Amino acid sequence: MLEKIRDVSDLRALTPGELPGLCSEIRRFLIENISKTGGHLASNLGTVELCVALDRVYDPYRDRLVFDVGHQCYTHKLLTGRAEGFRNLRQYGGISGFPKPSESAADAFIAGHASNSVSVALGMARARTRLGGDYDVCAVIGDGALTGGLAYEGLSNAGQSGEPLVVILNDNAMSIGSNVGGMARLLSRMRVQPGYIRFKRWYRETVGRVKPVYELSHWVKEGVKGAILPENMFDDLGFYYLGPVDGHDVEALESAIAWARDMRVPVLLHVITKKGRGYPRAELNPERYHGVGPFDPETGLVKNGSLSFSAVVGRTLCRAAERDKRVSALTAAMADGTGLSDFAKRYPERFYDTGIAEGHTVSMAAGMAKQGLIPVACVYSSFLQRGFDMLIHDVSLLGLHVVLGVDRAGLVGEDGETHHGVFDVAYLGAVPGMTLWCPASFREAEDMLEQALFKETGPVAVRYPRGGEGAYTEGGAEACKLLRRGGDLTIAVYGTMVNEAVKAAELLEAEGISAEIIKLGRVLPLDAGPVIESAKRTGALVAAEEVCASGCIGGRILAAAGPNAGFKARLLNLGRGIVGQGGTEKLRQLCGIDAAAIAQAAKELKA
Amino acid sequence: MLEKIRDVSDLRALTPGELPGLCSEIRRFLIENISKTGGHLASNLGTVELCVALDRVYDPYRDRLVFDVGHQCYTHKLLTGRAEGFRNLRQYGGISGFPKPSESAADAFIAGHASNSVSVALGMARARTRLGGDYDVCAVIGDGALTGGLAYEGLSNAGQSGEPLVVILNDNAMSIGSNVGGMARLLSRMRVQPGYIRFKRWYRETVGRVKPVYELSHWVKEGVKGAILPENMFDDLGFYYLGPVDGHDVEALESAIAWARDMRVPVLLHVITKKGRGYPRAELNPERYHGVGPFDPETGLVKNGSLSFSAVVGRTLCRAAERDKRVSALTAAMADGTGLSDFAKRYPERFYDTGIAEGHTVSMAAGMAKQGLIPVACVYSSFLQRGFDMLIHDVSLLGLHVVLGVDRAGLVGEDGETHHGVFDVAYLGAVPGMTLWCPASFREAEDMLEQALFKETGPVAVRYPRGGEGAYTEGGAEACKLLRRGGDLTIAVYGTMVNEAVKAAELLEAEGISAEIIKLGRVLPLDAGPVIESAKRTGALVAAEEVCASGCIGGRILAAAGPNAGFKARLLNLGRGIVGQGGTEKLRQLCGIDAAAIAQAAKELKA
Repeated sequence: MLEKIRDVSDLRALTPGELPGLCSEIRRFLIENISKTGGHLASNLGTVELCVALDRVYDPYRDRLVFDVGHQCYTHKLLTGRAEGFRNLRQYGGISGFPKPSESAADAFIAGHASNSVSVALGMARARTRLGGDYDVCAVIGDGALTGGLAYEGLSNAGQSGEPLVVILNDNAMSIGSNVGGMARLLSRMRVQPGYIRFKRWYRETVGRVKPVYELSHWVKEGVKGAILPENMFDDLGFYYLGPVDGHDVEALESAIAWARDMRVPVLLHVITKKGRGYPRAELNPERYHGVGPFDPETGLVKNGSLSFSAVVGRTLCRAAERDKRVSALTAAMADGTGLSDFAKRYPERFYDTGIAEGHTVSMAAGMAKQGLIPVACVYSSFLQRGFDMLIHDVSLLGLHVVLGVDRAGLVGEDGETHHGVFDVAYLGAVPGMTLWCPASFREAEDMLEQALFKETGPVAVRYPRGGEGAYTEGGAEACKLLRRGGDLTIAVYGTMVNEAVKAAELLEAEGISAEIIKLGRVLPLDAGPVIESAKRTGALVAAEEVCASGCIGGRILAAAGPNAGFKARLLNLGRGIVGQGGTEKLRQLCGIDAAAIAQAAKELKA
Repeated sequence: MLEKIRDVSDLRALTPGELPGLCSEIRRFLIENISKTGGHLASNLGTVELCVALDRVYDPYRDRLVFDVGHQCYTHKLLTGRAEGFRNLRQYGGISGFPKPSESAADAFIAGHASNSVSVALGMARARTRLGGDYDVCAVIGDGALTGGLAYEGLSNAGQSGEPLVVILNDNAMSIGSNVGGMARLLSRMRVQPGYIRFKRWYRETVGRVKPVYELSHWVKEGVKGAILPENMFDDLGFYYLGPVDGHDVEALESAIAWARDMRVPVLLHVITKKGRGYPRAELNPERYHGVGPFDPETGLVKNGSLSFSAVVGRTLCRAAERDKRVSALTAAMADGTGLSDFAKRYPERFYDTGIAEGHTVSMAAGMAKQGLIPVACVYSSFLQRGFDMLIHDVSLLGLHVVLGVDRAGLVGEDGETHHGVFDVAYLGAVPGMTLWCPASFREAEDMLEQALFKETGPVAVRYPRGGEGAYTEGGAEACKLLRRGGDLTIAVYGTMVNEAVKAAELLEAEGISAEIIKLGRVLPLDAGPVIESAKRTGALVAAEEVCASGCIGGRILAAAGPNAGFKARLLNLGRGIVGQGGTEKLRQLCGIDAAAIAQAAKELKA
């Protein structure tokens, strides 16, 4: 049946009885394809019926479906003419693993960072109302993303707005499993309550139809509702709460969504889904099958990843915690991703998972540091952008010793532009007094983290990439290290870019050009002296880095050198910082920051 | 009585009967002093009893009182030995208008940006518990600050933590007056409910004392409570809700705070206060007497401010809205401050006050722009730091035409380090595709805003300072303008720093040095070409700006010029960006960016 669905019009032509069969086919398609390409498995298996219902009730080309985070949109992509694209899902040149308006008009907005969907949807609803548009707006947000303060700001403003707008809460108990906040308590209470959607519906369709009676009896209804079921937070915020609805009963879903849409007020529809639904291994272990590489669909075997920087950081923190009871670890819903699972098991009393709440993580760490703990907050580089203000206001102004583990710094690969950690050098550089270490190897990650924990004061960050180390495996925590002597030009790098520099130097050597390599271990505060001296001696500098041009270290070196330094220079970086998806090797090549590009820039400078 | 209170020990020696008299004296003291120095009047008059009760129940030197926003802490300062300081409140070298640990050990944390207090207090409570400290932690947050998502993240995490911790909600109906979100609805419902604090207390002190009975009857109690009063959002988030309590009954407050403290769980104590209490003019018009300059306490006359950049922007937006129905204005709880009050009155249907929710403001604007509106978000520079991630993720990646009015850019004066807008050039510069205009005069503000609204695409910001224009009053929207020809050196400036440059050129002329002035109107994207050409011709460049060094335009010019440009250069800026309170003229002098400093740098370059 699936191959006949070329677009949503074909989907809408199906009878309700055909839908469960379609959903089974979609699940088989997803498992088959994701097992080949890798991708987000568990969340997409959990939202098959929800996406089918959404694309039948709404017209995704006219109405605006705003997915939060967005990695649960595969079925939606499949139903809107993108089945072919799954062959190169998340690969260079292929379709994205997230909604993307440039890929299809059926994708209303970009997604990747959590908790923005209600705000975006409210903006769209307001534009619709203001400009007299004839379309509906619906946000789809998971219970995990609901822990983010941005979602609360959106809900609070949307509830008060009165704008016709549906927010679907896709509750797969992620926040409950992790037990990361008050939201967990609220939702777990609501999950076991008998849905009173039938009462609400009956009321609207009978008493509610007769307007004077409706108004007269409004207070009676509110009283009755209050007696049957206490108001919850969503009611408090001005939403009309509906639910819970079984998220795997596609007919019930369609009916509830259509009803919510037609209420013409802000409605929160609570839908209960199961992550990994239909693939028992993923149902039992949704965390493991959340984002996977290629795997064997029969055995469920996921290739074991090799050692990562995240794991090394987690291990180092465990050792530090053993020695010093002040060491505490924080993460924002990324215990696994940041390598802290083991820390969480060994030191549960000083491990704090705050949910998707990066701003709170930073401010709480500031309070901890003020009172004598050594908090280490491990957050992905692109998500830490949410904590920028708190880093300045709560940490920096008091000079507090908060340690940041800036994970996924640099290019991250298949997750693409929303996830690359390429702005951190710019924004951490603007935080007064920030120290920033950039390990180039696992041993350096250990040594620099030790340095950050026990030898520094004030705010300190250690930034490290997704994945593992390259050929360079030396240890140490040196601000600046002369890696290779040479007389013809100077190459300045930091982090794992050192491997590209070494390769470039070898390429250049083959052509008779002798490159000096200076590896910066600490880039903030920047001691540009050794680089400038070397460049003055060799007469040329290539600075190559995996960050955006704005605020880059190369620019800071040139500003420090001044316009009279008397050497030539080329800065290689990611320009504006918008880089698509693909393998990091491929992306480095495309962006012109790999070994070949460094060698080429060097040759041009020496020509 | 007041003059006998040298510190909290004297305060604690008073009998309850003496307290109302003391509070009256404190109010007189505040009105008398603030009328001379200016400062936050209405909020401090509203929290006299609350501060008295807090400093009697807690020991502020040992316990940790975390004020949110912090401009309501004057009584606390007065009671902790700082009466003398009120003579130079908020002035250069004087005491701060906000809590400041460097000023007194009785100030537990810094404050200024809203909504961080619960997060900070939770971090402190965790440190206390983890390290076995013997002190209590209490956050004091207004209902306005509660609209911020950071507060929700903090409450959610704190409620789940079980940490003994008191959050005092100082509800002065600010969010209700402005009616900016669902929180308003919730609180207004709760304000009129009979407090059930007495029931709770009676229960704890009778049934609750007998442990087995307590446990046996727990579910009964929960049932009874549910029947008497539905749970509210704070209960949902895991807090024990107490209140409401009359915030001007100091005995009731003391008793409630002590009880909340002794419960040893996360407690939210709801206190109702009246802004401006005891000064009828401020009670009637709390907005006007929120932050005031010197005024006549008898007549209440506040000096009328002269025309400000904010007012010019508001006026320009009204004109634009008249011509184009797509133009919409957004603000985050700062309608007055950003000059949008008139817009709000004239175009209520396209004016959106989101509460203290800068992140949501940016993301909602993105949704509006995606669907065809032209949203203009007017936010203070230092508060817009909260929207940094949303600017990249929601606005920039899709290249949406969101216009930012970056108000209070540069040094703001008396509010000090938390409020200076000195990081925006750095962080806006990291947002891909951002255009940034910097008007130097009211007419330029008009012309550049017109340019931003109707001639640009993608994200555009217009940044302008607090207060008014200087001697320079020309109009136009030129990326680069040659203001003055000269042969000896080049001065590059933007915004109102142009006035310092002109004065510097005059000083230099008197010494026979001929300065060329290039005024940049648009600093992002930066066209450094004309500056570099001029500097190459004159042989020297002074770039002076009112922002932090990181990401500054001078640095970008030097990076663009390269190390072989062959001229001398000096960059004048605010260094790390931490600048204290004081008049802006004084601060410019101290930071070495005023006319005299520019002239001095020029002379040193030419020496």
